[in-house]
Amino acid sequence: MQEEFAIGLVGWGVVGGGVLDVLANNGELLSQRCGSRLVVKTIVDNDLSRPRPQQVSAQLSTDIDDINNDPDIKVVIHLVPGTTIALDLMVSSLTAGKHVVTANKALLAEHGHNLYSVANKHGVSIAFEAAVAGGVPIIASLRDGLVANEIDSIHAILNGTSNFILTQMEVQGSDYHEALAQAQELGYAEADPTLDVNGHDSAHKLAILARIAFLAKVDMHHISIEGIEKVTADDIASAARMGCRIKLLAVACKREDGIELRVAPTLVPNNFPLASVSENYNGVRIDACNAGPTLLVGQGAGALPTASAVLSDVVDIASGRYQETCQRFRFFKDLDTLTVLDEDDEITASYARFMVPDRTGVLASLCSCLSNRGISILSVNQSQPDHNGLCSLEVTTHPCRGGDFLAAAREIERTGLAVEPPRMFRMMS
Amino acid sequence: MQEEFAIGLVGWGVVGGGVLDVLANNGELLSQRCGSRLVVKTIVDNDLSRPRPQQVSAQLSTDIDDINNDPDIKVVIHLVPGTTIALDLMVSSLTAGKHVVTANKALLAEHGHNLYSVANKHGVSIAFEAAVAGGVPIIASLRDGLVANEIDSIHAILNGTSNFILTQMEVQGSDYHEALAQAQELGYAEADPTLDVNGHDSAHKLAILARIAFLAKVDMHHISIEGIEKVTADDIASAARMGCRIKLLAVACKREDGIELRVAPTLVPNNFPLASVSENYNGVRIDACNAGPTLLVGQGAGALPTASAVLSDVVDIASGRYQETCQRFRFFKDLDTLTVLDEDDEITASYARFMVPDRTGVLASLCSCLSNRGISILSVNQSQPDHNGLCSLEVTTHPCRGGDFLAAAREIERTGLAVEPPRMFRMMS
Repeated sequence: MQEEFAIGLVGWGVVGGGVLDVLANNGELLSQRCGSRLVVKTIVDNDLSRPRPQQVSAQLSTDIDDINNDPDIKVVIHLVPGTTIALDLMVSSLTAGKHVVTANKALLAEHGHNLYSVANKHGVSIAFEAAVAGGVPIIASLRDGLVANEIDSIHAILNGTSNFILTQMEVQGSDYHEALAQAQELGYAEADPTLDVNGHDSAHKLAILARIAFLAKVDMHHISIEGIEKVTADDIASAARMGCRIKLLAVACKREDGIELRVAPTLVPNNFPLASVSENYNGVRIDACNAGPTLLVGQGAGALPTASAVLSDVVDIASGRYQETCQRFRFFKDLDTLTVLDEDDEITASYARFMVPDRTGVLASLCSCLSNRGISILSVNQSQPDHNGLCSLEVTTHPCRGGDFLAAAREIERTGLAVEPPRMFRMMS
Repeated sequence: MQEEFAIGLVGWGVVGGGVLDVLANNGELLSQRCGSRLVVKTIVDNDLSRPRPQQVSAQLSTDIDDINNDPDIKVVIHLVPGTTIALDLMVSSLTAGKHVVTANKALLAEHGHNLYSVANKHGVSIAFEAAVAGGVPIIASLRDGLVANEIDSIHAILNGTSNFILTQMEVQGSDYHEALAQAQELGYAEADPTLDVNGHDSAHKLAILARIAFLAKVDMHHISIEGIEKVTADDIASAARMGCRIKLLAVACKREDGIELRVAPTLVPNNFPLASVSENYNGVRIDACNAGPTLLVGQGAGALPTASAVLSDVVDIASGRYQETCQRFRFFKDLDTLTVLDEDDEITASYARFMVPDRTGVLASLCSCLSNRGISILSVNQSQPDHNGLCSLEVTTHPCRGGDFLAAAREIERTGLAVEPPRMFRMMS
């Protein structure tokens, strides 16, 4: 006889429906594997009248106390979006002594410290494998699989919507707005895609990963964030000429003096496996001191991949393992304070595209501007002059100080070498 | 105060040395993270006179009873290669009530059933994250991260030596023996590389993965095994013309009637991320019913990546989590018996290269031979005739029954359409 493990579900939307679907379709297998029969006993949602595809025998309610006050229920899956009502609901479950499983990355990134301390206070845990990279087991891999490693850096594609749009722009040569419209049509972008395309969703996820990687408190204001809204078809074509693809990359990188934390459109050389992570896929590369570089790729969103991750967390709690993790591991307790590097002090390979007059000596002067600041050039590409006698001059560099590259680029513009502000991106190296 | 967790180490070779190095360099971090201070208390090796780079304060012995009889030691790391002495040593530790951590894939693949049952009998566990894909946390990802999924298939590059050789052959156009010599020079291949290049090492690892994926007993004789020794520079060049790379692929694939299990050189289309897993890297693609396709890539061997995995297992045991896993999960107990499909009944896309006379109608006749057996052609490529008037005719197919493709190829040869036996490979699709 297998013991029954009662679950509460708060939020019966797309992902909540996914959880119910997976339990309906694979619950038997799951209980064979993990030794407990997982049963959603009570579902709480503020709108129970909406028609839904799932048939359930669970108790339905609009009142979370029907879950929080039920001594049978040990774990509550919280799938309410946003950071206001969702926060209150989660705090109420933690305070009631329930373990919480969530996919809400914004809530964890913005209110994680408080939530973890409420959880600690009440002797319960918060599990969130589903909050980063959906079905890809990145949290467990980083926390447990790489436990014996200093983490040197994380380079990650964490937003499927942005990645889909950038892939479309590359494959079809379309501009940002066309590609966004197409993503919306195909269901890869929401009607309001703001958080996805402006980099904030990626930053939420990066904050969660960096906390685990560096055992440090990471706040959203630590992360410099730039989205993909201003990436042009020309940028993507130019990157291709330099042997790269543009990806919205979330980067956490340990340096001697602190940590670099940023989300930005970034050139990824085609020979890096991350460059091949296309369409709506997510990919995370972790450079660890002993394991070396490790890459995980998979579906970062969607009802079933997210439900797969949610249920892996539930199993981890039902088996008692996650409680051991939270009790023994330092991730949710007295963490270090993070020293975050200023963008000027980042060390990163860089790309710039200048519009320059078709005149002898321009390339030499431009190269001098860079080398005078100790910036080493990786490659240069110059186009034929257009009908205005202007050439596009593309430069990539070896890793250099961000501030130095910016200063050189400004000087190139100020001294009239370039006729307009350059297009600039970081490059993975 | 952190509790000290005493470890025994059996086998002080390259990986054993890696474990000692990681504990020396990252032990502090590790104990901060996991709440226990891991200490190698006793090292057993049959040759203690050999000079080694590590300085240790552990007790040294040639007698495993110094570990097995020490009540302080709860976990023994077994790193003795082979399947004879290694087996006896591991059984002795299990019988003495010690948890075992190992990287020995051959031992688990060939004697796993016995070892797991000895472990169960004595209430201890065997952990083996390091046995497959080195530093890549593939065992935990498959077992825990994807616990809520039926596993549809595994396609994996599991041997770094073979992958390095195939990459060299591709990049440099060299033949197998040149590339092998180079791999040996660079330390990517042993002096005796037999188990690596003949596919048996990959098969050992596939057996371990398939057991977890399908909750079934997998024996080595279930797996059809072909190595890379007969892959030619022409094969690799021809694959490139068809938009593919040749990889030594370990495949476990669930069909209606059973499981396909094989290791063979296989064409992987360049647009599959697995095709980009090059040099000595390992890569595992898992297709799971809810999470979708997930890919993990990293260092599959080497002292430090393997030590990273070994120590993640030790932490899992030190925290009490792995014991919960083994007690609750079904992986090591009453497993299903596997129905393995005959090679003829495999469903796989295929490739063949025929040498045919430069005569009108040859391509048509050849296509008829295939279509008569219901085989659908994906692409065809025909070379200019050589000085003997022979053309090389390359064909790839959509997935078809293995036996049908073989029969068609034989007929093409028998009827004189082709002048010599064709080169044939499976293709990933």
